[in-house]
Amino acid sequence: MKRSLLALAALTSLAGMASAQTTVTVFGVLDAAATSVKNGSAGTRKTLSSGQSNTSRLGFRGEEDLGGGLKAGFWLEGQVDVDTGGTSFDWQRRATVSLSGNFGELRLGRDQNPTYLDWNARDIWGYVGVATTGTLRGNFLSLGGASTGVRTSNTIAYWLPAMGGVYGHFMVGAGEGGTGNKYIGGRMGYKGGGLDISGSTGKTKKTGAMLDDLSTMSFGASYDIGGATILAGYEKAKYSTLERKLITVGTRVTLGSGQIKAQYTKATGVGAVATPQQYDANLISLGYDYRMSRRTVLFANYGTIDNGGNTTTGATYVASSNGPSGIKRGETSTGYQFGMRHSF
Amino acid sequence: MKRSLLALAALTSLAGMASAQTTVTVFGVLDAAATSVKNGSAGTRKTLSSGQSNTSRLGFRGEEDLGGGLKAGFWLEGQVDVDTGGTSFDWQRRATVSLSGNFGELRLGRDQNPTYLDWNARDIWGYVGVATTGTLRGNFLSLGGASTGVRTSNTIAYWLPAMGGVYGHFMVGAGEGGTGNKYIGGRMGYKGGGLDISGSTGKTKKTGAMLDDLSTMSFGASYDIGGATILAGYEKAKYSTLERKLITVGTRVTLGSGQIKAQYTKATGVGAVATPQQYDANLISLGYDYRMSRRTVLFANYGTIDNGGNTTTGATYVASSNGPSGIKRGETSTGYQFGMRHSF
Amino acid sequence: MKRSLLALAALTSLAGMASAQTTVTVFGVLDAAATSVKNGSAGTRKTLSSGQSNTSRLGFRGEEDLGGGLKAGFWLEGQVDVDTGGTSFDWQRRATVSLSGNFGELRLGRDQNPTYLDWNARDIWGYVGVATTGTLRGNFLSLGGASTGVRTSNTIAYWLPAMGGVYGHFMVGAGEGGTGNKYIGGRMGYKGGGLDISGSTGKTKKTGAMLDDLSTMSFGASYDIGGATILAGYEKAKYSTLERKLITVGTRVTLGSGQIKAQYTKATGVGAVATPQQYDANLISLGYDYRMSRRTVLFANYGTIDNGGNTTTGATYVASSNGPSGIKRGETSTGYQFGMRHSF
Repeated sequence: MKRSLLALAALTSLAGMASAQTTVTVFGVLDAAATSVKNGSAGTRKTLSSGQSNTSRLGFRGEEDLGGGLKAGFWLEGQVDVDTGGTSFDWQRRATVSLSGNFGELRLGRDQNPTYLDWNARDIWGYVGVATTGTLRGNFLSLGGASTGVRTSNTIAYWLPAMGGVYGHFMVGAGEGGTGNKYIGGRMGYKGGGLDISGSTGKTKKTGAMLDDLSTMSFGASYDIGGATILAGYEKAKYSTLERKLITVGTRVTLGSGQIKAQYTKATGVGAVATPQQYDANLISLGYDYRMSRRTVLFANYGTIDNGGNTTTGATYVASSNGPSGIKRGETSTGYQFGMRHSF
Repeated sequence: MKRSLLALAALTSLAGMASAQTTVTVFGVLDAAATSVKNGSAGTRKTLSSGQSNTSRLGFRGEEDLGGGLKAGFWLEGQVDVDTGGTSFDWQRRATVSLSGNFGELRLGRDQNPTYLDWNARDIWGYVGVATTGTLRGNFLSLGGASTGVRTSNTIAYWLPAMGGVYGHFMVGAGEGGTGNKYIGGRMGYKGGGLDISGSTGKTKKTGAMLDDLSTMSFGASYDIGGATILAGYEKAKYSTLERKLITVGTRVTLGSGQIKAQYTKATGVGAVATPQQYDANLISLGYDYRMSRRTVLFANYGTIDNGGNTTTGATYVASSNGPSGIKRGETSTGYQFGMRHSF
Repeated sequence: MKRSLLALAALTSLAGMASAQTTVTVFGVLDAAATSVKNGSAGTRKTLSSGQSNTSRLGFRGEEDLGGGLKAGFWLEGQVDVDTGGTSFDWQRRATVSLSGNFGELRLGRDQNPTYLDWNARDIWGYVGVATTGTLRGNFLSLGGASTGVRTSNTIAYWLPAMGGVYGHFMVGAGEGGTGNKYIGGRMGYKGGGLDISGSTGKTKKTGAMLDDLSTMSFGASYDIGGATILAGYEKAKYSTLERKLITVGTRVTLGSGQIKAQYTKATGVGAVATPQQYDANLISLGYDYRMSRRTVLFANYGTIDNGGNTTTGATYVASSNGPSGIKRGETSTGYQFGMRHSF
């Protein structure tokens, strides 16, 4: 998503000293959709849900030119719940301060980690809504109390500078005496000639009550041909003797102001954490976006997940957490939604 | 209240694409008052209280012109507690994304509902402070766990376009499996020649532990004569066998930079919810506003509520929740306050 | 710290009325540091911590010229946790609305109080990080449940106007029926010819479960000689029969873009609250700041605290709350950190 709202120039200093300018930008997304989710025998629930094609958010970011190619930057971004207004706004989507230059970028704070970024680059729905592959990825990554599936707190990250088409970044997160927060990971990729290919590896170190490290590796690629893009991704994750595999293939095709989206994703997992575990689900995702402008989009999403009959209790998947609870192994969760998104 | 703070123009796009502009406005109110409340035999408490002539708040809103008369808009607004700084800021005052045009406006999210807007249009104090009629309206509307007395979450609302002096809007709120959130309501009115007349009807559907639907209807009018306005309003609400009636008449008179305000309100209610209930209270409200500028106001408010001797335990009213607890049936709650408000 | 980011001019009014302008400024600090703290036999913990040379924050403030030398102003400021994004953003650092003119300033809301400001004026580290004197000042001031050690809610404050070099302010905080919030205090000082000298007195009134008033008095001075400043401060606090004394001396020396900082602080306390209490600790603080620009600073801090062998359980001090818990009397807490700060 492009966020280009307010680019505001710093004016005078309170103390009257000459000072460099910090350009501060206010940005955000407001996204809401009428949603219906049927979770097998648990029935159907209709909702007005927030952030179904892009997470609703509000943020402030800025950059100061320090001279000599160096820049200081900051980024604060928090989730907004358009449906209810939320209960306690925070900056957990991203809170960073950074220094960048020819050497790349050194970034401190809370941010998305390489493990997540690599998978998400191949999810056409960007990890939200009833069609996202994120629903098949989610609960496995919190095994043992790990909280590093998407974002990681207390991190120091290094991003490579622009080097031809090569990109990459590496992150270390301090455990700080808690459980499931100690993280190390990296991602490398190449982009050029319509091709974008990348891979990642990450580890949440055994801390507190964890039985073992939680390890992940992934790779994926996307290829642009004219108005169409084809994507494919693979992620493997391991915790104790439990191993999970995710595979996805998809395409999005632009037709005028519209875009058709389709994706197929399969999640499997076997092993034991205390008791034997089995994950087994297929997701078919379909969607259509209509751009009223660069910033305003109407969208329709459809996602249907078949949970395998041998899936372990608690390892079943649903198309959306907004549906009713109580789905059973072997049952299907289907969601569809119509909504609107405005970015600023 | 006029909010006209910052109208900031969007500048360049990050991606370099041509793009429509979203005009984003930062707005707010900071309002604090030295307040004294005497609640019958429970005694007196002095406080420095926030939002006593207009709720203290901070918000961001914006609008994008989509061409062809269409506009996309968003609105985020949260309450600020100037007295303590609050404990968890949120956007519960309003969080919406909308599409508007010649057809009117379609608005998704959390917002004030028709039931509230119609009553509040006839409350000179705008539902806050020691003189507001909102104190007589409040607790009845949460019977059965209903949370739709003022704002409603998960809503889709349709607002009529400008049609002569006719105005109106209709709202549906999804229950989403909770208790007391499922709402449907509408409001219609006419404004012209100094007269403003309107009515509303609303229903919070029986969900969860509710015994029954909670139904409301209201009507009211105001009339401007030179520097003076006369207002009157009526609301009836029903839950199980319990029925409540609210009636109010008031006036505000502008004298130079000052404004004198006076209002009388009566609340009655009889019926049973589990046990017999009786509401019976009269409120006399007086106030004076002095405008230092369009954005900065000094104010004084006075409100006194007589609770009837047959009022049920728990159905007593107080002029402000900032007073001491423990008022008894038949006792009087009196509050006065002096404060300052700045809007930006 | 100078905050001069966005000075934004109010443009048009929604209602079309002519209106005075409110200049609104968005400001903030993002500060993060890799930190290591060793707490005696409790061991060492490494963290990425927020706000170690200046509290990370986001704020909005504004001012309206009312004519005749009068101004209306507001200030909203909340802490940001760059390391984790935080869990519930609020405006507890400061939430005020005020009226100022030739008479001085009348300020309503939540703000830093005179008791704190006077001590903090002599703390080179501004009450944060592993080298701050604030660690020796902290826990004593919450005795009896008092919450007025730094900021106070529900206050009315009066600030003197500029009068030669004399400055001062006085504050009263309403107790509002709670425990440990009722406050009265004042501070006076003189600044001129490189000298800055001041003193304060404050009292948290006995309310709720408090055994007694919590009283403080302080005085201090700083003197600038060319690129160097020498500071000294003293604070005495009393609660029940327990009395504590704090004394600090320090210096900061500017060398080009760098600044060397050193400070020595001693805390002692004896008396009884229920059981006999004894406080006894020495802090040695060292630091270096390197300014990349007026807004961006790299910093290194070192602080080491010797807890006396007779210190009461629970009266031990640590260089940072980010270290491991379990330090014992007679043990040493040592912290060091390297970080970056960007102000906007």
